[in-house]
Amino acid sequence: MNNLLNESIQQITEQLKHWRRDFHHFAESSWFEFRTATIVADELHRLGYSLQLGKDVIKADARMGLPSEQALHEQEQRAIQQGALKAWLPHFSGGFTGIVATLETGKPGPTLAFRVDMDALALNEAQTPEHRPYVEGFSSCNAHMMHACGHDGHTAIGLGLAHVLKQHECQLTGKIKLIFQPAEEGAQGAKPMVAAGVVDDVDCFIAIHIGLGNSPGGLVCGKDNFLATTKFDVIYRGVATHAGAKPEEGKNALLAAAQAALGLYAIPRHSGGSSRINVGVLQAGSDRNVIPAHALMKVETRGETNEINAFVYQQALNIIEGAAKMQGVEYELIPMGSAQNSQPSPVWVDFIYQQAGQHVPELLSVVKRHKLSSVSDDATYFMERVKANGGYATFLVFGSELSAGNHNERFDFDENVMATAVKTLAVIALQLPDFKVD
Amino acid sequence: MNNLLNESIQQITEQLKHWRRDFHHFAESSWFEFRTATIVADELHRLGYSLQLGKDVIKADARMGLPSEQALHEQEQRAIQQGALKAWLPHFSGGFTGIVATLETGKPGPTLAFRVDMDALALNEAQTPEHRPYVEGFSSCNAHMMHACGHDGHTAIGLGLAHVLKQHECQLTGKIKLIFQPAEEGAQGAKPMVAAGVVDDVDCFIAIHIGLGNSPGGLVCGKDNFLATTKFDVIYRGVATHAGAKPEEGKNALLAAAQAALGLYAIPRHSGGSSRINVGVLQAGSDRNVIPAHALMKVETRGETNEINAFVYQQALNIIEGAAKMQGVEYELIPMGSAQNSQPSPVWVDFIYQQAGQHVPELLSVVKRHKLSSVSDDATYFMERVKANGGYATFLVFGSELSAGNHNERFDFDENVMATAVKTLAVIALQLPDFKVD
Amino acid sequence: MNNLLNESIQQITEQLKHWRRDFHHFAESSWFEFRTATIVADELHRLGYSLQLGKDVIKADARMGLPSEQALHEQEQRAIQQGALKAWLPHFSGGFTGIVATLETGKPGPTLAFRVDMDALALNEAQTPEHRPYVEGFSSCNAHMMHACGHDGHTAIGLGLAHVLKQHECQLTGKIKLIFQPAEEGAQGAKPMVAAGVVDDVDCFIAIHIGLGNSPGGLVCGKDNFLATTKFDVIYRGVATHAGAKPEEGKNALLAAAQAALGLYAIPRHSGGSSRINVGVLQAGSDRNVIPAHALMKVETRGETNEINAFVYQQALNIIEGAAKMQGVEYELIPMGSAQNSQPSPVWVDFIYQQAGQHVPELLSVVKRHKLSSVSDDATYFMERVKANGGYATFLVFGSELSAGNHNERFDFDENVMATAVKTLAVIALQLPDFKVD
Amino acid sequence: MNNLLNESIQQITEQLKHWRRDFHHFAESSWFEFRTATIVADELHRLGYSLQLGKDVIKADARMGLPSEQALHEQEQRAIQQGALKAWLPHFSGGFTGIVATLETGKPGPTLAFRVDMDALALNEAQTPEHRPYVEGFSSCNAHMMHACGHDGHTAIGLGLAHVLKQHECQLTGKIKLIFQPAEEGAQGAKPMVAAGVVDDVDCFIAIHIGLGNSPGGLVCGKDNFLATTKFDVIYRGVATHAGAKPEEGKNALLAAAQAALGLYAIPRHSGGSSRINVGVLQAGSDRNVIPAHALMKVETRGETNEINAFVYQQALNIIEGAAKMQGVEYELIPMGSAQNSQPSPVWVDFIYQQAGQHVPELLSVVKRHKLSSVSDDATYFMERVKANGGYATFLVFGSELSAGNHNERFDFDENVMATAVKTLAVIALQLPDFKVD
Repeated sequence: MNNLLNESIQQITEQLKHWRRDFHHFAESSWFEFRTATIVADELHRLGYSLQLGKDVIKADARMGLPSEQALHEQEQRAIQQGALKAWLPHFSGGFTGIVATLETGKPGPTLAFRVDMDALALNEAQTPEHRPYVEGFSSCNAHMMHACGHDGHTAIGLGLAHVLKQHECQLTGKIKLIFQPAEEGAQGAKPMVAAGVVDDVDCFIAIHIGLGNSPGGLVCGKDNFLATTKFDVIYRGVATHAGAKPEEGKNALLAAAQAALGLYAIPRHSGGSSRINVGVLQAGSDRNVIPAHALMKVETRGETNEINAFVYQQALNIIEGAAKMQGVEYELIPMGSAQNSQPSPVWVDFIYQQAGQHVPELLSVVKRHKLSSVSDDATYFMERVKANGGYATFLVFGSELSAGNHNERFDFDENVMATAVKTLAVIALQLPDFKVD
Repeated sequence: MNNLLNESIQQITEQLKHWRRDFHHFAESSWFEFRTATIVADELHRLGYSLQLGKDVIKADARMGLPSEQALHEQEQRAIQQGALKAWLPHFSGGFTGIVATLETGKPGPTLAFRVDMDALALNEAQTPEHRPYVEGFSSCNAHMMHACGHDGHTAIGLGLAHVLKQHECQLTGKIKLIFQPAEEGAQGAKPMVAAGVVDDVDCFIAIHIGLGNSPGGLVCGKDNFLATTKFDVIYRGVATHAGAKPEEGKNALLAAAQAALGLYAIPRHSGGSSRINVGVLQAGSDRNVIPAHALMKVETRGETNEINAFVYQQALNIIEGAAKMQGVEYELIPMGSAQNSQPSPVWVDFIYQQAGQHVPELLSVVKRHKLSSVSDDATYFMERVKANGGYATFLVFGSELSAGNHNERFDFDENVMATAVKTLAVIALQLPDFKVD
Repeated sequence: MNNLLNESIQQITEQLKHWRRDFHHFAESSWFEFRTATIVADELHRLGYSLQLGKDVIKADARMGLPSEQALHEQEQRAIQQGALKAWLPHFSGGFTGIVATLETGKPGPTLAFRVDMDALALNEAQTPEHRPYVEGFSSCNAHMMHACGHDGHTAIGLGLAHVLKQHECQLTGKIKLIFQPAEEGAQGAKPMVAAGVVDDVDCFIAIHIGLGNSPGGLVCGKDNFLATTKFDVIYRGVATHAGAKPEEGKNALLAAAQAALGLYAIPRHSGGSSRINVGVLQAGSDRNVIPAHALMKVETRGETNEINAFVYQQALNIIEGAAKMQGVEYELIPMGSAQNSQPSPVWVDFIYQQAGQHVPELLSVVKRHKLSSVSDDATYFMERVKANGGYATFLVFGSELSAGNHNERFDFDENVMATAVKTLAVIALQLPDFKVD
Repeated sequence: MNNLLNESIQQITEQLKHWRRDFHHFAESSWFEFRTATIVADELHRLGYSLQLGKDVIKADARMGLPSEQALHEQEQRAIQQGALKAWLPHFSGGFTGIVATLETGKPGPTLAFRVDMDALALNEAQTPEHRPYVEGFSSCNAHMMHACGHDGHTAIGLGLAHVLKQHECQLTGKIKLIFQPAEEGAQGAKPMVAAGVVDDVDCFIAIHIGLGNSPGGLVCGKDNFLATTKFDVIYRGVATHAGAKPEEGKNALLAAAQAALGLYAIPRHSGGSSRINVGVLQAGSDRNVIPAHALMKVETRGETNEINAFVYQQALNIIEGAAKMQGVEYELIPMGSAQNSQPSPVWVDFIYQQAGQHVPELLSVVKRHKLSSVSDDATYFMERVKANGGYATFLVFGSELSAGNHNERFDFDENVMATAVKTLAVIALQLPDFKVD
């Protein structure tokens, strides 16, 4: 297997870098991945994959954190100007930027799915001489959009894997599904894809991430302990009035939000494990001399288990409602994202550990499990659905030298990680017949 | 008139001092005025006044801030040990320590009522050499009970007035009512007396106070602008749990109270006039390592008008309920007292101003109206009821040199004020036939 | 006098309306009054007034609430495009948009100053069919700038008065100063003009306002009881950190601001009179999943006296500093505006009352004093300086039918008020020799 | 060994129960263990142990949470009335209720120390028919003092062990120290005993506890993960003033405490492990109508490591100081107790695991380590000192059926656990020569 595979990998290596830098330059944040999606779809189509697109893989009313129609429209125009392929665009229009590509081998065997994510962060990229993407001319040309979490690399890996698997199609069995997900950053895109049923037929599932502080050049076969999370906005609506002339006629939305923020941070710790609460943004009021009639809070809760997250969230609901009552204001709570806690399937991790160790000498280290209970990823929705159906799921991390931490404006990674990742994932697909569960 | 009246006043002067010091020594706080009431009743009875007592003048379920049955019982026992007259005690038992004494002259004429209050403050009296009551041996012998507001003097004045009016009965017309009210300090005693109808037949009403920062030796004929007030307790009941082992199982009543206290002080100012809010007491929790399951707040609102006070109170209700909701705790709100805003009747003030100026040369100054919008007195309930029935009402203040401000543990007054007050009030009663309203 | 004066007023009436609508259409908010100022300067220059401009009448470092240099530059460009007169612009460049025009009569007599303000509010004007300025085509063409407080009318009145006084120059005595002030809305522009000494030689001073809820067609000769006010921004600077991964490494500026906001609203009432406190705006944080490292609060305090305002402000300083300490964040306090309490000079009010009653029959009512302690105006700085130098000062209000309250997006006034105002002010100037003070 | 040992245990069993019930009946809370200490001292003296008492084993100024001198005096009188042995009392007078008993075997060998605690909780015991101590007549006769944590049993075990070891003295080697500690509940008594050097010569250390939710009849050989904790009181001192008349002259201590309480609960979670914060008690203010001038908070912080606890404590200091600053009040912080995080020595746990498994068949289960990071015990001070000196330390838990959880008013345990515990501890002492460390 290895000679042929290595050849395929070598052929694709330069292309991986090209794709990655193209996506990086035209970074598109959540639900705005119009250009990226058309390029991905076009490439997969040309390779011969059968495609499901847009509304077929994203349940409309399960989407969270969707931008306004106007913003979606404007971004679609921006994407066209930046080279989005117009033939594919209608499928994704209006915030349906997901793709599932299927390869039916015609041979019996389980269905194996790979999930990569395509969205950038809402962040301005550093445009400074020590930042390689800037120096080499591929830093983001879109304001407040930057690939600072490596999803540009994930998308490139997904395309590279599509190439390689197609080349080795005759050696594969069962069915391969490549899932390109939008809107991971706010934990918004996975739930509507799961709701559309895209992993209902999947037996073995792999999500991937590069970096995340893991050993450069190494592989973690089963990332553990994602924090379950719920993300939501709170809007308080009161009554404005002149603060000098008629303070008593106001209903103070800012005060409600301040009371709520204090209450939220004061939610009790949980003896069952880690929890988190954050009010990341509070915007209230209009003018200095007006009793503030409007307030917005961007909140997130997290928990080491779904139950702990649910506990924090339930407390938050009480606090938010009570604070509204205190000031006599109305409130609205808008779901903006969510992810679950999930554990990888041990036998599936063992299999990957074995195959990677044996067939991918490029990996500098292979680690079975890695425990870190402080981040969230909505790939957990796919994992839990697959496991609930009796399948096996895991989350792989490919370590890479990083120029700065994830979500930093100077984030960059060692592009060699992409070829290694493609090879590792291809090996798993090719060796899948050896995966036996008693 | 004056020679005979002056003689009567002279006869009573020493007795006024004796009564005052006796009441001062055996100070009794709100609803505990058992000893005081029996002495007052006995004295009025011996003078020949017809008496209404206890439940006849205090509507049971309109009482506020009533102590526990056990406390009432213990204090009744204490009163007996301190010389309460057992024959009269049953009338007052259980917290019904009010008296109305009536003198029917048999001659036609309006009904004139005088109201004095009998209760001490819940305060420990200074027992120090610069404090005259201590030096002269009449400081309070009851812990946490002290006449630091002059009600001992008021009660003595009421008794002195009873003596003098009786002596001049043949010159009087109409009906005289002397009202001895309990529990003024918490604004608790007037409402149930009004509810019992004790001023329903009153045409002209006078309440009195000594001191209050007014010019020593002078008279204010119409004190203005009492703040309306509502006094209440709030109890939060949550769930206790070990703060180390199971913090998430608690419902934190202390946190609810802290949120509420902050919210209460933050109630907006009112452009229509002065308002006040105070959380005078907050007691919460049991042990350092237990999530606090209980909290008590003693709160009062005030307003320059009844409407402003009602505004503050309504805001407070929202805040208290909202804070309970925030922490998932239960709450209870217990009315503890109230007083209204009230203005004196101008023609009645004019009459008193004229009579006092003409017939009471002992007064060093006579002032018509005095505006001070920062204190409350539940005599306003009597005033408003009388005025609502078409009568006339006012609140007189007899200025006196004070050793310390009202409610201070070193409060004392110049006892000469009592004779002057008795004379002034008697003059008003004797001159009442001259009070003509068009 | 009256025939000639009436003729002058009639000549100017249509022009008043033209000016007002021009200023209304090209509304310019605080420190951006570039176009307005050039037109005013040009007009006054053509009339023959001697002018002091820009830095000569505005002390640079006494300005408050100055926009950024970039914003000033952009607005200056905007003004040029909207017809600002380039010859005058350099005087006002960089936020020095004030003008003082002087008419030396050459005859002995006191110096009389009139002050009008020129700035619009930071508000979007209603563009709806029931709003006359929109229907008649003169609603604001500048986003977030609207004359919703009548300063467009004030400026027109100032120009009209300049015309009329020039026509009657031979009848005038002493010196006339016309002060056109920028940036009244945030209480920012008067202090630096006073600091530049523009009223140091003034004996008699008049500031004006239209509307303010006073009787349409009427005049208030001495508006009372402006609330003293202090306006300031607070910035908290903490440390951002990932809310899931390292919450303990953050310094939470949002929490500091929430604590401060609660504390500010809870500043105690003052028994000496009305006070106000408002946190009109709170903006904190960047992203939902980041501990907020930045917060901005826009705050104002007010008091019925300078002392009460100072009390509230001092409490606010403690609270703001304490909240920073609580969260371990840095803070900065930026003065943004201020006004004093001021009372009109009684003899000056009496004189105006007399002259207006006698010579301006167009006024439907003339009222001496009007008490309303709920608004602020920084004209009080001029008033206090003039009075401190032994002069006389007042604040006139010309009542007008309003379509909506001041500061409302549908505010409009009856333009006839302008001619009446010009006549009244001209009468005062012409009759000034009759103003005798013992 | 076992036959003789079993005989000794059998002889002592009834006595264990007698002691425990006596201590339970005369429960004495922290620093008030006068009666208990005299009985313990007398018993140990009669057995022939050499004693160190009071100030010799408790460093005076390292004590925390000491009651007032008056309370200490009153409780000493109470103890005398309840049978405290007067001969021993002077040693313990003034809050020095600790004892160290030493048995010198004369043979070479390490020094082995056992620590038990003697204090009751500040809790009223249930006096109800379903509560065995009440039914059988040994429930606490002291108000607000109850052995609801099993320390009565610990003291009895300590005395029983003293008996048994004395009987087997000839088989023992080295030195045995029995430490009877006061004031464990508030984490107050261990630190001053360590400061007095009582374990400076100890090579092997064992602290014990019964119950704690462990398997009835079983033994945990090394309890893990005690939470480090700091316990302290905060006092705020402001200025009282009449809430109606002069609210602006007050300095509100209640508001400071409410702000602080909210801030304390809002201290951020720590990504390094569990933390806790609790404001268990808040008492503020005097009267409803007085701005509160005094507030007391009883606070505790905890952390899974000493560092995490120190982090929470440091945040708390900032919050407490900042809240004082906000309200312009003074504050004082009084240390009331502390405990460290500590881990048992693995080789020492292994030895005990082996010996208990082999020689104590009465144990229904033997478990090496038990992780539970939610409680604190100041035995950790002894453990850390011993380990710092190169010795070995652990904390044993003897599981028992409980009638209610620790700290509950209906707490009771299965008294059979005492004999099992004595035997286990004696076995360890007797087998100590087998404890070899490389």
